[in-house]
Amino acid sequence: MPASGRVLLAYSGGLDTSCILAWLIEEGYEVYAFMGDVGQEEDFVAAEKKALAVGAKKFFLEDLKKEFVTELIYPAVQANCIYENVYLLGTSLARPVIARGMIEVAAREGCDYVSHGCTGKGNDQVRFELAFYGLKPDIKVVAPWRIPEFYNRFPGRQALIAYASEKEIPVAQTTAKPWSTDENLFHISYEAGILEDPNTTPPTDMWKLTVSPEEAPSTPERITIEFKQGLPVKVTVPDDNNKVYTDGVEIFLTLNTLARKHGIGRIDIVENRFIGVKSRGCYESPGATILRVAHIDLEGLTLDRNVRALRDQFTTVELSRILYNGHFFTPEREFVMASIPSSQRTVNGLVRLKLYKGNVIVEGRESSEGLYDEQQSSMDELGGFEPTDTTGFIQIESIRIKKWAQANIRKQQAGVTAKDVYGSKA
Amino acid sequence: MPASGRVLLAYSGGLDTSCILAWLIEEGYEVYAFMGDVGQEEDFVAAEKKALAVGAKKFFLEDLKKEFVTELIYPAVQANCIYENVYLLGTSLARPVIARGMIEVAAREGCDYVSHGCTGKGNDQVRFELAFYGLKPDIKVVAPWRIPEFYNRFPGRQALIAYASEKEIPVAQTTAKPWSTDENLFHISYEAGILEDPNTTPPTDMWKLTVSPEEAPSTPERITIEFKQGLPVKVTVPDDNNKVYTDGVEIFLTLNTLARKHGIGRIDIVENRFIGVKSRGCYESPGATILRVAHIDLEGLTLDRNVRALRDQFTTVELSRILYNGHFFTPEREFVMASIPSSQRTVNGLVRLKLYKGNVIVEGRESSEGLYDEQQSSMDELGGFEPTDTTGFIQIESIRIKKWAQANIRKQQAGVTAKDVYGSKA
Amino acid sequence: MPASGRVLLAYSGGLDTSCILAWLIEEGYEVYAFMGDVGQEEDFVAAEKKALAVGAKKFFLEDLKKEFVTELIYPAVQANCIYENVYLLGTSLARPVIARGMIEVAAREGCDYVSHGCTGKGNDQVRFELAFYGLKPDIKVVAPWRIPEFYNRFPGRQALIAYASEKEIPVAQTTAKPWSTDENLFHISYEAGILEDPNTTPPTDMWKLTVSPEEAPSTPERITIEFKQGLPVKVTVPDDNNKVYTDGVEIFLTLNTLARKHGIGRIDIVENRFIGVKSRGCYESPGATILRVAHIDLEGLTLDRNVRALRDQFTTVELSRILYNGHFFTPEREFVMASIPSSQRTVNGLVRLKLYKGNVIVEGRESSEGLYDEQQSSMDELGGFEPTDTTGFIQIESIRIKKWAQANIRKQQAGVTAKDVYGSKA
Amino acid sequence: MPASGRVLLAYSGGLDTSCILAWLIEEGYEVYAFMGDVGQEEDFVAAEKKALAVGAKKFFLEDLKKEFVTELIYPAVQANCIYENVYLLGTSLARPVIARGMIEVAAREGCDYVSHGCTGKGNDQVRFELAFYGLKPDIKVVAPWRIPEFYNRFPGRQALIAYASEKEIPVAQTTAKPWSTDENLFHISYEAGILEDPNTTPPTDMWKLTVSPEEAPSTPERITIEFKQGLPVKVTVPDDNNKVYTDGVEIFLTLNTLARKHGIGRIDIVENRFIGVKSRGCYESPGATILRVAHIDLEGLTLDRNVRALRDQFTTVELSRILYNGHFFTPEREFVMASIPSSQRTVNGLVRLKLYKGNVIVEGRESSEGLYDEQQSSMDELGGFEPTDTTGFIQIESIRIKKWAQANIRKQQAGVTAKDVYGSKA
Repeated sequence: MPASGRVLLAYSGGLDTSCILAWLIEEGYEVYAFMGDVGQEEDFVAAEKKALAVGAKKFFLEDLKKEFVTELIYPAVQANCIYENVYLLGTSLARPVIARGMIEVAAREGCDYVSHGCTGKGNDQVRFELAFYGLKPDIKVVAPWRIPEFYNRFPGRQALIAYASEKEIPVAQTTAKPWSTDENLFHISYEAGILEDPNTTPPTDMWKLTVSPEEAPSTPERITIEFKQGLPVKVTVPDDNNKVYTDGVEIFLTLNTLARKHGIGRIDIVENRFIGVKSRGCYESPGATILRVAHIDLEGLTLDRNVRALRDQFTTVELSRILYNGHFFTPEREFVMASIPSSQRTVNGLVRLKLYKGNVIVEGRESSEGLYDEQQSSMDELGGFEPTDTTGFIQIESIRIKKWAQANIRKQQAGVTAKDVYGSKA
Repeated sequence: MPASGRVLLAYSGGLDTSCILAWLIEEGYEVYAFMGDVGQEEDFVAAEKKALAVGAKKFFLEDLKKEFVTELIYPAVQANCIYENVYLLGTSLARPVIARGMIEVAAREGCDYVSHGCTGKGNDQVRFELAFYGLKPDIKVVAPWRIPEFYNRFPGRQALIAYASEKEIPVAQTTAKPWSTDENLFHISYEAGILEDPNTTPPTDMWKLTVSPEEAPSTPERITIEFKQGLPVKVTVPDDNNKVYTDGVEIFLTLNTLARKHGIGRIDIVENRFIGVKSRGCYESPGATILRVAHIDLEGLTLDRNVRALRDQFTTVELSRILYNGHFFTPEREFVMASIPSSQRTVNGLVRLKLYKGNVIVEGRESSEGLYDEQQSSMDELGGFEPTDTTGFIQIESIRIKKWAQANIRKQQAGVTAKDVYGSKA
Repeated sequence: MPASGRVLLAYSGGLDTSCILAWLIEEGYEVYAFMGDVGQEEDFVAAEKKALAVGAKKFFLEDLKKEFVTELIYPAVQANCIYENVYLLGTSLARPVIARGMIEVAAREGCDYVSHGCTGKGNDQVRFELAFYGLKPDIKVVAPWRIPEFYNRFPGRQALIAYASEKEIPVAQTTAKPWSTDENLFHISYEAGILEDPNTTPPTDMWKLTVSPEEAPSTPERITIEFKQGLPVKVTVPDDNNKVYTDGVEIFLTLNTLARKHGIGRIDIVENRFIGVKSRGCYESPGATILRVAHIDLEGLTLDRNVRALRDQFTTVELSRILYNGHFFTPEREFVMASIPSSQRTVNGLVRLKLYKGNVIVEGRESSEGLYDEQQSSMDELGGFEPTDTTGFIQIESIRIKKWAQANIRKQQAGVTAKDVYGSKA
Repeated sequence: MPASGRVLLAYSGGLDTSCILAWLIEEGYEVYAFMGDVGQEEDFVAAEKKALAVGAKKFFLEDLKKEFVTELIYPAVQANCIYENVYLLGTSLARPVIARGMIEVAAREGCDYVSHGCTGKGNDQVRFELAFYGLKPDIKVVAPWRIPEFYNRFPGRQALIAYASEKEIPVAQTTAKPWSTDENLFHISYEAGILEDPNTTPPTDMWKLTVSPEEAPSTPERITIEFKQGLPVKVTVPDDNNKVYTDGVEIFLTLNTLARKHGIGRIDIVENRFIGVKSRGCYESPGATILRVAHIDLEGLTLDRNVRALRDQFTTVELSRILYNGHFFTPEREFVMASIPSSQRTVNGLVRLKLYKGNVIVEGRESSEGLYDEQQSSMDELGGFEPTDTTGFIQIESIRIKKWAQANIRKQQAGVTAKDVYGSKA
């Protein structure tokens, strides 16, 4: 017996979600198709035509690029977000804006259900659904790749192709690339297929956004990025007639263009998915990689040491985890993000960079914030405090250490073994 | 009235410590000179001759390279130690072994005092002295650059040169380089002088250990590093007739050689010294940079997710801080380092790398540890668990989030403003 | 069609698990019954008789008290484990030893399945099953309260009673207490039933282990607890003829007796279950409450400040979370517990306590560890360091703070509003 | 040669600061005396008379009680601040308002210097001076107890009494109590003197603010505290004709009165001072102890689990450390406190308490925030989610754990010893 009700499907235009669209109709749903434009390279017109051809009653395309950059990417830049030391979270960052776009359309258009084509083993199903529930706790979710009737019927690509053929769904490529991708203006990800062997080097032609460092220009290019409160507000490219960019989205896209040209931002890792499975992923995050280097560098010049250390341990770690695990629409995300503004108030100034064959090299930085003081810092002159003060500082710092050393020496003199005094250290 | 007693001076062979040697004698001390060989490029024979010529009663050269690598560098590699996201702690790592070498000689040779030539504004004075006190709490320290009689008498390099001339101390260079360096087998640091303007790009000829990426070979070179329990145990260089290195120190030196050749390991930062002063430093840490990339990558494949996250937040952060601040011979260092072995038990396997013009690119990794499971990870097949389980997982994960969303919606329906429900988010 | 295979059931002797036993037989399983003696007050002989009468093929009673105390309780005492500031984790601590006991019997006796009577909303199902899987990843679990055929058939207590009557299972009480309990030698918990209204004060006669403070003796009683490496090794009761206890289990039981008498260890909280549901629980943890006070006090005297702070933030927090969430047989538990010994090496000495009507009052403590130094600590005499050193310490500590204050003042002088300088602070 | 300039002295009316006042005049300073009223029991009129008699040119008494409660105490309550598990930070909390009061007077009255009577070994000198520098970085501090001319001249109490006699300063008591105290409306501290032996039980007559539990009424008293956004806004005392208090300061004072009567809030600890010295302190924090119990309890009912856990690890720990170490006027304090509002938005409701002989017993709590859901929490009925969902949750949670267990079993089957598989666990 068919289900009934209206479902909003996150549609990509590809084989999977087209088959899901057809299958949902078969199951008795009225299907509306949704696409969020987060900067992926996509023929949205063709996708719309296809969705409607397969049977969608309506098609919605939402331009989410600006909110993606300003509400997700820029806070992540301010907080230096990174997952497991390496991954800049490009897919995670796009999910909240797509989910919010869907829930807004679903509410407006009276959809009782939302649906997506994420697999049952990945992170994105979790990110989407936790976002749906955090925004609209009574929404119902149809996740076909976790419904036995669906996944048993379509055990592999061939079954989907057969079904597409049966439903007269046009299939773009008969032979798909042997990996999956997710793309937005921040990054592209590659996973699955041949990449599942973590010892397989990605083929040269897999990488889409960036040239390889080997193929990048042999002449370095210099740029200057100016930050206000931790956000990039101006990018200057001296070699391009001192061209200047000041709009938030434009800045990001410019950095993308420069990074792509210079082979910047590729990574290849084995990461830990939220559900506890290890997974191999390759990513290109070109502009974000430049921004990260510049932002961290400027913080060295302008951010108080203790704020920086606390922010690194709290905001950076927790916001990264929250983003990766799809906990964006939660009280803990609000709690953690509340700490960002007070950490970025002094992060004002500019950083000069050299881009060259995969490298982002800091060549200098300046700021009118007064936390760096050449004279005080100087090894060559007095300034700021008396050298004798340091003697007092060291004496006080050593009180606790001396006491501990004295106690240990006393114990050893009393015949206690070094092992019992110091533990495993003989 | 002169002081009396025997002092062991950390001697470098340079202008500063030679003048300090002479001055200590003038002050009435009997001076023994100490050099620790931590891999710096130095003419130790000439330094010994000079120390004795200036008036040292004895000269001690201790080879500390092996303990430097095995007791300091390798734990730091296992724990992925890094300071303020960028600095690999090369100077900090050498200080404990030098300090311990000095205290051993001081105890054996009956020295009541130890002395060093560190300035009164830097980190090294603190690192040395806290190490001295942690090893021998009753040792007395003479720090001339914090003694007004000394620093007022020698307000600049010219005064030192004049004093050297008076004392017939040979001065190697009449014009010093406009920066200071500290070198060991892990790294070299550059600071002070012209570098004190954080917007001054370091001159090309400053960098000593590595070629620039621009000058590095245009042909990539591939290597394989094998780890056991988080430590490198074998490096293979296929392009060099599959040459293999297995000795701990040799592995490190080989990686240094390769990284130097390929322009790997330069950084330029503004950092926060322990005493709270911001300071600009440039560093080359060639081999260590390769090891860090490889070790972190292998942990992706072989280390449990939760152990990794806890280790990152605890061991990595705290050990890095401890090392930077010179708290090596303390109870907290023992406490933190006790966590390393259980975090590295499964970090076994090998990483394949490509070195190219400043880049360290992971090309693959493998391990017989079973935490990565291709079938389970696969997006293309079932395996390891049922997709329907994930539905339950997401439902349970969303309990808390739905409750919170429901409460917020109820509040807004009751007329509470969005600002009061969500805080600053309108 | 009945299932087949042998199942080991965690049996309590009560209505639920007796019905589960009968139901498992009905489902086609061969059932072995398991009881772990973790110090709960229970008629094990009667339970065995009942289990066999209901149809269990075999009955196993394992005395787990010693390993419960030494492997679970004592590490938790050393690490000051506590959940959400209040709960001492008594149920969580017993689960790993019971689960391990079951897995050992299951392996020995060739059981393919293990089963338990935990509900589908609580923590214990998670704790049991994650422990099972961490010890024997291929074990199969039968959790009737999560199987629709079972929970739909037995929607409430009446249905169970009817089934018991049908199966000739003797039911001890026709009217159960309006709450559930879990008891072991560490504590008893009360939850569910009338306690589900968090504003209902627990009835006086609910509390089983302790007298109320009001009913406790009006004469205080004094005891001394001696610790070695953070573990209690001797309890002396002066008022009881200086009676002395030195055996690990005996010490714990003695403290229980004393605390029960003096009304110590009751709490009443709303806590957050692992699955994200808030839940009201009342607990009595008598002896553990005394031990916690004494151990924390002795650490003040004997534990280095920095070790203590790091241990509090890492070991205490993480081990508590691990225990509560049932992650005992995991790599992260091994990682976290590896830090305990080096944190407790100096926690040697004794604490004198007064017990009085719910209060555990520290009256004094002593230790031969030398970290406390009366002369150095004294406000009335010099000792240990020069007061002038502190001036240097404060000057150095203030470098960073002064720089920041100067920058703020300069900004305000330049016309920046206080709000933009300091954030929300006007 | 006398110094010159105007100094504002933190004056207490006691022997020490009276002698310091006289000595500063002797040294050539013009002295203004400052007293901050933070709720200590003090005869301010007599103190003013005395200060002027000794030679102060002006006397300033600032009523700082309201800002003490609202700007310091209440944020600390919201953040559950505590130092080393036990100490509620009463002295630390008062220092910032006193220091700020002084700096305001110093700026207004043209004082170049501020001075205080804190010893050279304690925390308060650091707290005062870092606050001075954080507010007015160019202020100059005169700390006589760290000036050799002063502390060598007055090596003990007798020397001060002799000097007072010489200067005709009236000395209240010829025999001082054998300990020092610091009092404000939050607490009183006792340290030094006979308390320096950590095994000396404080004499019964030392405690000033509270009766002992033994002497407290044998009839319990009940109260209700209502919170809005984590702050107490209403206290009701049913036994006192349902008397109601709603003013912030009045609420705090009422809780003080009740707690004092019922023997609540005494502690006795060995703590670690900021300078690294261990020190014994006894404290009475009556009202604060009640507030802490109530606030933590209400958070159980109303605060999201993850926000609570993050807040505990970040805000609570770091703000406590910041307060204790005197880092209030710093960027890190602003950073940490910025996280409080978003953690307290839902902490609305009331807590019912029973006060009895040192005990603060929670008898119930309620809130209209909807995070607690009786039906969902209930063990006796379905609600909120399907029990089968939990099966999925546990399966997914166990993926990582099973993989690890399988790997370990495989290793042991391959002959690896348990020790090498699991570390120290045999």
